[in-house]
Amino acid sequence: VIESIRNRTEKHSFMHDLTYYKDFISEEIRNLKYRKTPPELYEPVSYIMKNGGKRIRPIMTLMACELFEGDIRKALWPAIGMEMFHNFTLMHDDIMDKATLRRGIPTVHHKWNENAAILSGDVMLILANQLMLKTDDDVLREVMNLYNTSGLLVCEGQQYDLNYENREEISLDDYLQMIELKTASLLSSCFRLGAVIAKSSEENKNKIESFGLNLGISFQIEDDILDVYSKSKKFGKSIGGDILSNKKTYLLVKAMEIANKSILEEIQYWLRLKSPDPKEKIQVFLKIYNDLNVQELAMEDSKKYYAISLEYLKQIDIHEHRKEELYKLAAYLINRKY
Amino acid sequence: VIESIRNRTEKHSFMHDLTYYKDFISEEIRNLKYRKTPPELYEPVSYIMKNGGKRIRPIMTLMACELFEGDIRKALWPAIGMEMFHNFTLMHDDIMDKATLRRGIPTVHHKWNENAAILSGDVMLILANQLMLKTDDDVLREVMNLYNTSGLLVCEGQQYDLNYENREEISLDDYLQMIELKTASLLSSCFRLGAVIAKSSEENKNKIESFGLNLGISFQIEDDILDVYSKSKKFGKSIGGDILSNKKTYLLVKAMEIANKSILEEIQYWLRLKSPDPKEKIQVFLKIYNDLNVQELAMEDSKKYYAISLEYLKQIDIHEHRKEELYKLAAYLINRKY
Repeated sequence: VIESIRNRTEKHSFMHDLTYYKDFISEEIRNLKYRKTPPELYEPVSYIMKNGGKRIRPIMTLMACELFEGDIRKALWPAIGMEMFHNFTLMHDDIMDKATLRRGIPTVHHKWNENAAILSGDVMLILANQLMLKTDDDVLREVMNLYNTSGLLVCEGQQYDLNYENREEISLDDYLQMIELKTASLLSSCFRLGAVIAKSSEENKNKIESFGLNLGISFQIEDDILDVYSKSKKFGKSIGGDILSNKKTYLLVKAMEIANKSILEEIQYWLRLKSPDPKEKIQVFLKIYNDLNVQELAMEDSKKYYAISLEYLKQIDIHEHRKEELYKLAAYLINRKY
Repeated sequence: VIESIRNRTEKHSFMHDLTYYKDFISEEIRNLKYRKTPPELYEPVSYIMKNGGKRIRPIMTLMACELFEGDIRKALWPAIGMEMFHNFTLMHDDIMDKATLRRGIPTVHHKWNENAAILSGDVMLILANQLMLKTDDDVLREVMNLYNTSGLLVCEGQQYDLNYENREEISLDDYLQMIELKTASLLSSCFRLGAVIAKSSEENKNKIESFGLNLGISFQIEDDILDVYSKSKKFGKSIGGDILSNKKTYLLVKAMEIANKSILEEIQYWLRLKSPDPKEKIQVFLKIYNDLNVQELAMEDSKKYYAISLEYLKQIDIHEHRKEELYKLAAYLINRKY
């Protein structure tokens, strides 16, 4: 077995690096042609798609495809379909969360208006449908089913996220279920998608999906930390946005779990307070988080899921040196500053 | 040729009637099972889908399929997919139009809230994707392409509709282009879908699509009339809603086209007036419409498109007596009271 793996991987020992994938994806997204009229409908689509982001979802699809020796040109359009779908969810989530800033520029509903963001988001979901169809017949149904199912899970996660803003007591399990649906499921599906297009084995598909799921949970915990502690201009969102909207982030859920009675009451007071002073509210929570050391606890849990994810990656029946770029991607995602 | 048509149609002379199709569709929609959690996400889906409506889109798909001797059981799920898609557009349009009533009950964003209507609408679009995939492999791509393309056209039409609320001068051509995109394209696609699933000829697909397109234009003009003049409780929307939101309906566009200078100024005054008394605004427009006799003119134009649609239906290479239910459907759509 070892020998056959070595032969197989030596034949294809080359894997592209992260920068190559990102440039490839970004270039193709820049070149996407949309229908032209009415411009009010398609300009927000082009606006959000061209404004970058880390492009990690399509990168994941291409990497998984290449890892399993698939043709990455066949994965390109579905990969971009996943990125289109992701940006559709951002456009609608930003309305629901009343976010004014995304990747350093005004959100669509803020720059145009809510109706524009609703309708252009709808169009993006349909454009994503079209991109997903650019797949060979023999994997078409599997691709479409994976895409639709993970799409539903993302919506379910967003609904829990909204529900939790108005619910005071959220357990760490509730939180984990929510981020698994809202964030990790799409990341894991992007990996699986690449494996599906490469026609890899069911076992490999499951393993790379589990790698992505655990990495995704770790990724979201890091995201929660960055919302409060990011010092980078590239973060692109307003610092403390989660605090102001009473988002049940890892930090808040953990803080409420370990706080003593008086601190818990202080947290509850600020969660219930109508129209607080934004700066003051952020300062209060920052102090509580620091006193309770929840950033540290979050990083520990994040590392736990990161370690599990690497375990799944290790188990995949491909020579380790071929997985190098995937390890790098994983490390990049949990060590990022924005 | 005549003989071969006769043979063919006598073999299959039976077509189900309108009531049969409607009951069949309604029953299947009532039996649809949605995922259960979070309930906040799926309850609005069930709420809007179970509350009836005329079900004309899926009926059109089933009828076209049966007309061309396809198996209507194979058309059922894609037909319901089109109905799901249509209801998704209603849920989002009602937010954009700030409509509080739909089919006699509160709209989703009014009963729940805007976020619920955005997110449950998104879920419906994904559920529609899933339903459309329940199609045989040999027509799958044609079905999906038709569905996605007509979906984009509907969004484009809605965008024009929104644009026109804030634009004073709309020509009758602008109006017709808008309703063709927003309403007629989906109706015509529903007919075409049935023909695709029945694997009919390209010529028949084009003809039944043109039948649907012209019927759809006629249907929308009737809808514009009903918004002002419906006396039926079953209409289910607030009378004069289009007037209050400055919708560029056939009636308004035509009125502005034929009005003399002083009436045109009166119309413009009321279109520009911020926070008018709703009842008074409706009364003013009703009087202008009556004075200018635009209802009559609208009905004439509606009949013109209706006649064109029947011409296409007539041209379809199937014995006339087999088309009877389609003629009835067309007549029902333009003679309806709600």
